[in-house]
Amino acid sequence: MQRINVAIIGWGNVGRGCKRAIEECKDIALVGVVRRPASLLKNREELKNTTVVSDITELDKVDVALLCVPSREVPEKMKLYQKMGICTVDSYDEHQNIAALKKVADLDAKAHNVVSMIGCGWDPGTDSVVRALMKIVAITGQTTTTFGGEKGGRSMGHTVAVKAIDGVKDAVALTLANGRGKQKRRVYVELADGAKAEVVEKAIKKDPYFLDAPTEVLFVKDINKYNTLHHEGEVERTAMEVHQLYNVSGENPEFTGNVMVSCVRACMTAKARGEFGAYTLVERPLVDCLAGVTVEDKLEGY
Amino acid sequence: MQRINVAIIGWGNVGRGCKRAIEECKDIALVGVVRRPASLLKNREELKNTTVVSDITELDKVDVALLCVPSREVPEKMKLYQKMGICTVDSYDEHQNIAALKKVADLDAKAHNVVSMIGCGWDPGTDSVVRALMKIVAITGQTTTTFGGEKGGRSMGHTVAVKAIDGVKDAVALTLANGRGKQKRRVYVELADGAKAEVVEKAIKKDPYFLDAPTEVLFVKDINKYNTLHHEGEVERTAMEVHQLYNVSGENPEFTGNVMVSCVRACMTAKARGEFGAYTLVERPLVDCLAGVTVEDKLEGY
Repeated sequence: MQRINVAIIGWGNVGRGCKRAIEECKDIALVGVVRRPASLLKNREELKNTTVVSDITELDKVDVALLCVPSREVPEKMKLYQKMGICTVDSYDEHQNIAALKKVADLDAKAHNVVSMIGCGWDPGTDSVVRALMKIVAITGQTTTTFGGEKGGRSMGHTVAVKAIDGVKDAVALTLANGRGKQKRRVYVELADGAKAEVVEKAIKKDPYFLDAPTEVLFVKDINKYNTLHHEGEVERTAMEVHQLYNVSGENPEFTGNVMVSCVRACMTAKARGEFGAYTLVERPLVDCLAGVTVEDKLEGY
Repeated sequence: MQRINVAIIGWGNVGRGCKRAIEECKDIALVGVVRRPASLLKNREELKNTTVVSDITELDKVDVALLCVPSREVPEKMKLYQKMGICTVDSYDEHQNIAALKKVADLDAKAHNVVSMIGCGWDPGTDSVVRALMKIVAITGQTTTTFGGEKGGRSMGHTVAVKAIDGVKDAVALTLANGRGKQKRRVYVELADGAKAEVVEKAIKKDPYFLDAPTEVLFVKDINKYNTLHHEGEVERTAMEVHQLYNVSGENPEFTGNVMVSCVRACMTAKARGEFGAYTLVERPLVDCLAGVTVEDKLEGY
């Protein structure tokens, strides 16, 4: 079997999740991790059998680049790899910018005969598929999504945003339900030596990621005590006589990595059909994300 | 706007549900209901503004036929309409036969330049999409689907099967959870005059629909007291360290009709692209089932 060659761009939680996900896929091979400078990742136990380079051109042929960088860096990185004829997958999470990103990315993808899967994480991503499903099962209605439940779930995007703030040594950002369609955030922060709590708290609350919901910042000595794998979300659609609910929950540390790696297959299927362009998860057949070749494989469990 | 012309084939709960769903779609027009003989539906209040015919050739141009007949009649009806150059949508629910049905239907659809959407109801249908999603979010694992919950939900397929049994005046079949991945059935039956309870009960329990789960048959005087709109299902996927749960519930009488009518759009989109064939819901982009034309429409709520 010809395997799909992928590179992981960036080495944070999502990059690690992608690596573990790839290990579960016989049809996908990790060619290497790209992190500038590569020396930053030298001697990492978790990467001892993995090629780490500063630039993707140092790797053998890469079919798909998994963009495991902060969302804000995704548009630029995507453009770079598209120009090199490499497909991309990302979990870009700025909902309000996705349609605009898609328009630009679609033109670039078509210009360079590649496929880019965008916004393919948890939300946007699989939750978006659930919201599309709800428009199908309840044609008229209003949809609300409530994240986090009562005990709160880990938000990758918010955690990454906090970790990038000066004075933060480590952090976990939780999302908790705060009434229907509303959330609140709770951020646990371990301060870097000499950092001032008030300054860090202000910076977090001013970050665009935290402007949409009340945010509580708690400073702790050991972040590991507050870490969690739990995530939870509820998508609800209501109309006059209809009430429809999809509840998603789980302990699943690789959620985002699994979704991104599954989308590698969708890239290659679309490319093989000459359907170059940028797509979200609702714009490609879900079956193209799954392992398997025959009709029976594809419909297993249908 | 050019509307899509559809005909409803058969007039049971699913047919009625499709009619109500069409009324919510500005881009889809109901051309008529096909029921042989049409005289059976004469003077029905619910059909007073609807053309009812015995044969589809009596209707103006039909783009898509909604096959609202019992599952067992679907393959034959599909073949008939495909030959006439008409696309079809069904909610065929015999899981074990779907791959085989798709193979035959796909050849016929390609031969006649049409598109058939098969198995597009609740389960198979949108639950199948959820199961595909779970393979994406948790690559390795075992999936189980448990229907009905504790209070039980209405099963359309089982209700139709019971109603077709001699001596049954009216019936409601509920599915209840019976442990993880297991179900039991409860059937409320109103007997026809002169029918014998023992004979009817035996016939129900021998029906292929009821062979897979313990079935309790209760005879009642007025079926309306036991009717319910509730439905519920849980799709669970587990592996070593992963537990992933999607729970679907709601009061949504038009669930199946809404899914089928949404798939009308997917038929026309595939046909317009020359992608003739037979597809399940996981084999087409979900966005093709939604109203809207522009990128912004398509990604609304993504």
